[in-house]
Formats: sequence, C-alpha cells, structure tokens
Amino acid sequence: MPRLSERAQVLQESAIRKLDLTVAKHTDTTFHRLNIGQPDVATPSVILDAFARFQPEVVAYGPASGLPGCRTAAARYHSRWNGALTAADVAVTTGGSEALLFAFTALCDPGDEIIVLEPYYTNYNGFATVAGARITPIRTELADGFALPSDQELDAAVTPRTRALVFSNPANPTGAVYSRAEVQRLAAWAQRHDIFLIADEVYRRIWFDEAPASALELADELQQHVIVVDSMSKTFSACGLRLGFLISRNKTLMEKVERLGQARLGPQPLAQHAAVAALALPDSYYDEVRKTYQGRVDALIEALSVLPGVDLPRPKGAFYAMVRLPVDSSERFARWLVEEFRQDGQSVVVAPGPGFYADPSSGTDEIRLAAVLNEERIRRAAKLLTTALDVYPGRVDAGS
Amino acid sequence: MPRLSERAQVLQESAIRKLDLTVAKHTDTTFHRLNIGQPDVATPSVILDAFARFQPEVVAYGPASGLPGCRTAAARYHSRWNGALTAADVAVTTGGSEALLFAFTALCDPGDEIIVLEPYYTNYNGFATVAGARITPIRTELADGFALPSDQELDAAVTPRTRALVFSNPANPTGAVYSRAEVQRLAAWAQRHDIFLIADEVYRRIWFDEAPASALELADELQQHVIVVDSMSKTFSACGLRLGFLISRNKTLMEKVERLGQARLGPQPLAQHAAVAALALPDSYYDEVRKTYQGRVDALIEALSVLPGVDLPRPKGAFYAMVRLPVDSSERFARWLVEEFRQDGQSVVVAPGPGFYADPSSGTDEIRLAAVLNEERIRRAAKLLTTALDVYPGRVDAGS
Repeated sequence: MPRLSERAQVLQESAIRKLDLTVAKHTDTTFHRLNIGQPDVATPSVILDAFARFQPEVVAYGPASGLPGCRTAAARYHSRWNGALTAADVAVTTGGSEALLFAFTALCDPGDEIIVLEPYYTNYNGFATVAGARITPIRTELADGFALPSDQELDAAVTPRTRALVFSNPANPTGAVYSRAEVQRLAAWAQRHDIFLIADEVYRRIWFDEAPASALELADELQQHVIVVDSMSKTFSACGLRLGFLISRNKTLMEKVERLGQARLGPQPLAQHAAVAALALPDSYYDEVRKTYQGRVDALIEALSVLPGVDLPRPKGAFYAMVRLPVDSSERFARWLVEEFRQDGQSVVVAPGPGFYADPSSGTDEIRLAAVLNEERIRRAAKLLTTALDVYPGRVDAGS
Repeated sequence: MPRLSERAQVLQESAIRKLDLTVAKHTDTTFHRLNIGQPDVATPSVILDAFARFQPEVVAYGPASGLPGCRTAAARYHSRWNGALTAADVAVTTGGSEALLFAFTALCDPGDEIIVLEPYYTNYNGFATVAGARITPIRTELADGFALPSDQELDAAVTPRTRALVFSNPANPTGAVYSRAEVQRLAAWAQRHDIFLIADEVYRRIWFDEAPASALELADELQQHVIVVDSMSKTFSACGLRLGFLISRNKTLMEKVERLGQARLGPQPLAQHAAVAALALPDSYYDEVRKTYQGRVDALIEALSVLPGVDLPRPKGAFYAMVRLPVDSSERFARWLVEEFRQDGQSVVVAPGPGFYADPSSGTDEIRLAAVLNEERIRRAAKLLTTALDVYPGRVDAGS
C-alpha cells in the first residue's frame, strides 16, 4: 500500500457524517434532522431564475477572484457595514469553506497556530489540517452566555507562531451574538499582536434581539488586520450554490488570495450570476429571514424548556442551540436516537457536542440543535427528544 | 503589516495572468488569444438545458464525494476504460484542479516530493505550493517528441520523500500522446517504488492519430497505485462548470479523499446534474470534438510551417503546441506582441515557455499555442505571428 500523508490520516471522519450513514440505513423511519445547518427554507426565486437565464454559448472560465460584476455586487452589499469597500476588497470563493481555507493557507505555514473560540464550527479542524496549522482553542462557556475571553486570556494563548484569531458572529454552534465593542476589542487585540482577526460572519443576517457587529464596521486603522468571511449559503438558503466571499482591506493579503485563486482557476460564473441577483434583494427579504428563524428558534426553545435537567441558553443569532443534557454521553445518545429510539416511526438526529471542541473529551453532555425545519416539525422533534430523554438508558440525574 | 505565510509569498503570479492584465488595457486592439486553454467551442446544449431544469425548492448541500447519481454516471462513462469501476471509485470535485489538489494533499506532507514530467501544466506548481510539496522535474524533449524518461532516469529522481509521479496524457503543453505500453511502464515503475502514479487525463478525448491510453485501462494489480484526474472542462467545453473527477480503485485513498471533501462540504449539485446529462452523450459527440480540434491544430501547424527557424512538432493530442522560436526571450516576445505589435489593429497573445518549467531559465525560446479559436481565426493569428517574427527586434537567427 503506497503511503498517504500524515495530514490525510489526521483528518477525522465527521461525527455528523458518520451518523448520516446510519440514518440512511433506516429507511423505515422518518427522521427530523436537527443535526446539520441545512435549512428547509425555500431558496429565493431570483436564484433559480438566474440558473434558467444563464445560457451562454460557451460555459467559460471566469477570473480567479470572481467576475467583476459579482465582486462589485458583493462590495455594494457589504457597504452597509463599510462604505469604503470596493470590488478589490472582495474575492469570490467556492463557499465560505474555501474563503476560510484561503485565509488559513495565506496566513499559516505548517506548524503555525490559529486561536479559535471554542466551541466552534467543526470544519475549522479540517481547514487547519489541510493548511498544516494547529488550532489553539479558548473555551467560551454556556454558563455566561459564551462571553468572549478577556485580553489576558487571549494573551496567554499567543505564541510566536500564532497567526490569527478566528471566531464566528453570530456564533455556530452557540448562537451567541457579539456587539461592536466586543468585536472591536478582539480586533484591537489582534492588531497589538500584529496578527489577523478572521471573523466568520456567514450567519450575520440571522439575529433576534440585537444585530451582530460586522468586523467590517470597525475603524479604518483596524482593517489591515481584519478578514471577513461571508457566504450565500445561510442568508439565501443556498448551501448548494457553493459561493462565498473573502473580504479584506489588506491589499497585500488580497494579492495572495488572488494567487491562491489562480491556482484553482476562477469560481463558477453561473453561481456568481445567481449571487448578483440575490445580493440585490430588498431589505424586506432579510427581515423575512430573521422572522422565519426567530419563529423556529422560539419554537425549539419553548418546546424544550419543559425538560428537567436541561441547560438551554436561548440563541441570540444564527439558528443553532448548544444544549446540555442529563445524559452519560451525547455521542451515545445521538447514536441511540438514530438506531433505537422510535415514536410513531419517527426519530430525531442531533449533532453530538464533542465535534465542536478541539478536545473530544469536552462537550460530552452537550448536543447542537439546528432550527432548520419548520415550526411544526421543530415542535414535533422537540417532543420526540423529550420522550427520548425519559426512556434513554444512559440518562443521568442532574447534579449527579 | 501582519505576517503572511511563506507559501503565500512563494505562489507566483501566473505569467499568463500578468499578460492578461496588459491585454485588458489595450481596448483598441483585437487580440487573438492563443495563450489559455479556453476554447470558443459551443458548450453542448444538454448542459445549458440542465441549468434551466434545475429548479429545486431548496438549493441544498450535496454529499462530500458527489451526488450518487453523478458518481454513478461518471463511473459508467469511465467504464469504457475499466469495466470494474463503480461509483465508490469516483469522487466528484470542483474542477480537475481540486482533484489534483486533493491528490497532492492526500499524498504529501510538507517537504514531500512529486516527480513531474516537464514541461508541465503551470498550475501543478500552485497545487504543490498549497500542499507544501516540492516538484522534482524530469525533462522531456521536443527533439524526440517528448518521449517518456527511462526507468533509470526515473530512479535517479526518487528520494525517500517521493510520493508520486505526475504526468498528463494527452500532454499539456506538449501535445504528446502516450500509449498503453508506455503508461503501463510508468505505473509498474511507480508500483515498484510503492508510490502513486497520478495521470492527468483531462484531454483524453482530444487526440488525432492514436488514442491515448488511460491509466484506468491497466491491469487490476497496478490500480492500487493509480489516481486518474478527469474534468468536464475540455471534453465538454465547459471550463466554467468547475466540475472534475478523482478516480482511484485504492479504497484507503478514496476514504481520505472523502474526508477532504467533507472539510469543504459537497461539490455543487447543479453542476453535477449538468455533468450527468453530458456524460450520457453518444460517442458521435466525441468524434465531433476530435474533428473540431484536429481541424484547428492542422490549421495552426500548416500556417506556421512556412516560418523559417521555427521548431514545430505536430501535436498528437490535446490542443496545444509547444513551439521553439528564433527569439531572444519568449517572455519579451509575448509582451512585445501585446504591447507593441499591431497589424490592422490586431495582435496575438501567446503563453511564454518558462511558465511550463520548474526552472524559469528553461523554455526561454519556446511558447505554448492553444488551438482554441476557429480555423479562420487560427490562420489569421498564425499570419500575424509570421509577420511579428519578421519585425521583432529581439529576433535571433536560427543556430546563433
């Protein structure tokens, strides 16, 4: 057997994906899938119309950093948060995923470090592994609403190899939303250490009380240290479009991102035409998005709040809740739900907590729930979870 | 200024791209672009129809290694070369580019080496840089039709860090086509060294005398050491679809490729539906493709053969010719064409040779021409080149 790379060995099989394979086997069961961020919200018709309208004679390559029209549309859209943005500050990428991978690759050589606020989006691990970077987690806690670490805590995590601080706002998987003052503190801290702040803002349009601050809003003098990642996936319920944006006012960085783009040729023009159409939607569209997810998150929290022994912070944005359950192991509980628990031929799929921590011995009594189904199905799924917790053999009493 | 990675510094600006920026400035000139592999051949209507037909309620994520239907269609298409292929042997990627990047990443850790037959497709450099791998070039020569290196030459290039041998067939940029016996020798050599043979076969359908051998055709016992890269781009004139395939019968490798895929989420379902439609085209479609490019390549060679002092091998496949010119520097000549040479307000864009070599002091009297325009425009471009060589100030006499 020819040798494969160490990094290929290190790449973990996604816990979510592993569960999915089991789900696929139980064709007799109706599963309510709260485990992945795939909303059932209809994609805006302007995107589908753009597919039908795209009828060039030749389906040709586009430029490495995106079609000028798409970069301009993205800059105009993001000018809500920073009026100085131009097309040159935006690179179009194959999903927010590629934007994060480009950021990690442009900043890190093998062995370099990225500080990540934990719990965090599982795939940061994959991007770091591919880039050869190491993740240094700093814990945020359910108990204090996932408050950001202090400057002193951040200082303690820095080494000469630290290249960036990464966080998401609104946060996946916690649902936390961070204010202007908080984001500004992170950016100022990054600037003092002369490293980048990578703000993953793919859930920016989904919030319930106060809008999250975009790192793009910060003062000019901080922008040289800021990279913002955005995506069409959640805002426009278009996960399968695979289109995202890497945004930075740092011209040297954007030159390198252009070269990373050249190495894989330009992102798909078709998806960019669809993005141009979607980015021109009126503000009322975003109000509707917020209302939809507010209804879903409210339904989820209300239905689960009857549960004893469950620690249930109300999400302030995105559409996830990180929930602490009275169970022996959230991995076992999630597998048991899929393999054994049934009520009226139905069950629920949830994401086990450890996948959202650098150390898989953390989050063992937490699950992430995604409010991606309509309110009726969410209520039904929550009821199933309530029943399931009653009969789960690995239940532990609160405080035990 | 915050620090960027070494690898970001190393990524070269593509020489082709640099020229493109200059081309864009001269809006008063009609440029005949023979510098990039972007054909002006119409994309088959089944692909455009698939765009219009794709009207799901939700544009959702697909699986990491591709939609089952697309993997099956690709396996069936490739069963022409290996009847044992199944969907599990195929991963759908975002272009052949991502297939190559996945292969490099799955095989190489930073500092590992990949042997590449030179001259080679420029972007191999980018994939290697991103993966942290080093390219060890072995020269093939215009004088002997770019014959493959002997086993002894290959042996001499191997070190304990060598992970793969990469070649393209038909070859970009040389137009060489390698036979079953030749490919089998490479695969057997790779197997003896227990490393992978990566066969970049994105031009497999474009050949003029004898069909290239696919590495998929080789005997079962060699397949554990074989990775084949294919793409929709050239076969279906759909470069902008950004869809390709990584194919291997090595199950351990394919597991790692699945994980690399999970780290960036699944490739775009829309493009995969278009691919399923295109992969079902009848054999007559491929005959047509060959005829089209045969006409173009013939026109190019015929029109250029009148030139004195030009070394001009007739391509046997793909649609490129690597041509030796009596010039001081092919980089200067290419720039001079774009910036200064005009005839009737027209000029030609060519790709300078050094971009196709690991050492940029090689290929300084070579250019790559891509027969991507219709025959009339190719003849016109060749005439322009003839005139240009007559008046180019940096012309050197053959043999000087």
